[in-house]
Amino acid sequence: MRLRHKPWAVEELMKRDHIVIQNPQSIAGKWKSHFGEFKKLHVEVGTGKGQFLKGMGELHPDTLFVGVEKYQSVLYTAMERVEEAGLNNVKLLAEDVSNLSDFFAEGEVDQFYINFTDPWPKSRHEKRRLTYNSFLALYERLLVKEGEVHFKTDNQGLFEYSLHSFSLYGMILNQVSLNLHESGIEGNVMTEYEEKFSKKNMRIYRCEAKYRG
Amino acid sequence: MRLRHKPWAVEELMKRDHIVIQNPQSIAGKWKSHFGEFKKLHVEVGTGKGQFLKGMGELHPDTLFVGVEKYQSVLYTAMERVEEAGLNNVKLLAEDVSNLSDFFAEGEVDQFYINFTDPWPKSRHEKRRLTYNSFLALYERLLVKEGEVHFKTDNQGLFEYSLHSFSLYGMILNQVSLNLHESGIEGNVMTEYEEKFSKKNMRIYRCEAKYRG
Repeated sequence: MRLRHKPWAVEELMKRDHIVIQNPQSIAGKWKSHFGEFKKLHVEVGTGKGQFLKGMGELHPDTLFVGVEKYQSVLYTAMERVEEAGLNNVKLLAEDVSNLSDFFAEGEVDQFYINFTDPWPKSRHEKRRLTYNSFLALYERLLVKEGEVHFKTDNQGLFEYSLHSFSLYGMILNQVSLNLHESGIEGNVMTEYEEKFSKKNMRIYRCEAKYRG
Repeated sequence: MRLRHKPWAVEELMKRDHIVIQNPQSIAGKWKSHFGEFKKLHVEVGTGKGQFLKGMGELHPDTLFVGVEKYQSVLYTAMERVEEAGLNNVKLLAEDVSNLSDFFAEGEVDQFYINFTDPWPKSRHEKRRLTYNSFLALYERLLVKEGEVHFKTDNQGLFEYSLHSFSLYGMILNQVSLNLHESGIEGNVMTEYEEKFSKKNMRIYRCEAKYRG
């Protein structure tokens, strides 16, 4: 646990265990029914401060959204947002994405989101990128057949790499946008980073990568 | 034959039959040996005025380059360029790309280039785009196993579409560049359009799409 900036956050996170789920292993395979009667389960890896997930939760009340974020100091902000918005369809996990298969059963997840993830620009860190082959294999195991990963970033290098990685894995790229905010897409929920970067007129890149099933 | 602008061009093209090949059908299967002892055969579809092919021919004397361009008024300029440069490894075909399989044998081509092709932005014209499924199937038949299509364009919409189309076909995207002239790529030969657009600081998009073989 790394909480250099907010040492009191852990305790607070533990108290909100209806939002920050403490024993996600025990819910594997039954997320949709455990918290109600949800039609879909969508998982965001690297949730950060949770602005995207909060917005999605408000827009899609029939879907259960789970955000995974290992840095608890940012997750704390996400928790506050979810609490303030009174959302019962957004849950958070203070966990490492690498351990995802401990928390979800095979074929349980309907969709993954990766938003503005760390680009790890050095070649020797390729394996840490959340669009690296081993992560794509991990998502595939947990996803429904022909499931999708929806990916947004402002980082040109990471997007170029990810197009390579998705296609190498055999995935189909849909809805590719090389300048999201000028493409007139509807229903886009902005992340915190996205709002900041788009105000500076920086390009946001997006695609939906679909497994062949 | 459409020669509205240069009605005298056909005759001139016919005279230079060592550059503008008149019976390409008869050479199918033996391009590399017919004109010398070339190691590779690279084909550009939609050659336009031939600046790219001339530059490539000069850089790679061991490779035979064949440019296919149905508009003879622009092909005339390409022919002049090849003649002036005294290149014996660049040949031109005044033909439609759809008929490519009449001119090359299966597995004969080592690489295809598509540069700044008509984007055909309307959905109902999708089938005319040179990165449409049926063209990708055509290139695959004529290419060596695990052959590649190298693609450049300034058109964002066409690039987005082509990433989709390549990946849907199962091709692997390598060397993706979303801003070619800022990526520090070496050995890039510019087309006429590319020179014009990059001077205006417009982005050039590029990728290498590889068949799985």
